[in-house]
Amino acid sequence: MAEAVGVGRVRVHMMISLDGYTAGPNQGPDKPFGDIPEHFLDWVFRLKSFSEMHGLDSGETGPTDDVIRETAENLGATVIGRNMFGGGPGPWPLDAWNGWWGDNPPYHTPVFVLTHYTREPLAMQGGTTFNFVTEGIDTALARAKEAAGDRDVRIGGGANLVNQYIAAGLVDEIELHIVPVLIGGGTRLFEGIPAPHPKLELVRVVAGAEVTHLKYRFVQ
Amino acid sequence: MAEAVGVGRVRVHMMISLDGYTAGPNQGPDKPFGDIPEHFLDWVFRLKSFSEMHGLDSGETGPTDDVIRETAENLGATVIGRNMFGGGPGPWPLDAWNGWWGDNPPYHTPVFVLTHYTREPLAMQGGTTFNFVTEGIDTALARAKEAAGDRDVRIGGGANLVNQYIAAGLVDEIELHIVPVLIGGGTRLFEGIPAPHPKLELVRVVAGAEVTHLKYRFVQ
Repeated sequence: MAEAVGVGRVRVHMMISLDGYTAGPNQGPDKPFGDIPEHFLDWVFRLKSFSEMHGLDSGETGPTDDVIRETAENLGATVIGRNMFGGGPGPWPLDAWNGWWGDNPPYHTPVFVLTHYTREPLAMQGGTTFNFVTEGIDTALARAKEAAGDRDVRIGGGANLVNQYIAAGLVDEIELHIVPVLIGGGTRLFEGIPAPHPKLELVRVVAGAEVTHLKYRFVQ
Repeated sequence: MAEAVGVGRVRVHMMISLDGYTAGPNQGPDKPFGDIPEHFLDWVFRLKSFSEMHGLDSGETGPTDDVIRETAENLGATVIGRNMFGGGPGPWPLDAWNGWWGDNPPYHTPVFVLTHYTREPLAMQGGTTFNFVTEGIDTALARAKEAAGDRDVRIGGGANLVNQYIAAGLVDEIELHIVPVLIGGGTRLFEGIPAPHPKLELVRVVAGAEVTHLKYRFVQ
């Protein structure tokens, strides 16, 4: 269990469509979310907290903005999949591609990237260092917990990685940002979780104007 | 559009698991919801409104109970699929099987059952009459609207039928009762809806102790 190492929680925060997708079909290096309706993402781009994560200071405030800002609080490390870093099929051009996130990525923590290809750590601006882990999800989480100390670890995504961590019983809390769109295909959250399925308890409901934020605790 | 006939709305209210299922695998005549965790249904059995629909007077009150009671308000007719009536593979034993719902079904309205087999209307206690419609979803809805007059029509389920009505652009409003369980397989809501997908607007969020009730309006 997560409590065995450190006191922080292992958290997931994912936006999800009404039909259960976190990304659409035809994902690729130049289209990280695949084919999605614009509205699946634009609500987050409009938020003040989103602007702040990217070093700006403008945008909408309100309950949804508060929830998104909160996801960065008490956060000590982040684990993401190769595609979320900025992957694509085949090995990276090792010293030529620093991911999708620009010079100052919005993580502002050590980030542990699950991959099959070794690479030296990549220090970015604003406190983000990408560390590339080839030994699997347990090792990535252990290294993230060590880096986070008493603070929380976020499993950042994508959904395939989150599903692996849920299946392994390693997630303490998941918050879903339920976006009122249908995507119709792509990557699903909660897929491939073997029975007996983990139990969940509702922790909190926050109603934004468009997006609803449901937080659950895994009871394992 | 639904407004073309009558002034009532065409409404859907469905319980749905966190992984998007409205019923589990292995559904059958003696197992209408298939293999599901007990908790997917037991929250509704405990409600006072559920007891009342079945002629009893006990159970839990609160926001979830209010939402479930409200689903029956201003309701003039119901459309359901054959399986929800109490189907199964092959023709019914025509005069021997009155469905799953007992002598006093909880519908208390005319009910239009989509089926491939003709059958005389079946009048039950408490205001429910099952009418069997073989001409497809448009005819079933037209007959339900005629029966409902100014009141609303509920598309009762299952999800396969609801998906057909959504795909046809015939649903005005959908309320999801989001139950914090994973089912892992079975029947999914929002499947088979062709692109361009309908747009939805959040109407209301009600946070129950366990179940969250999200109501959306289709904007077509």
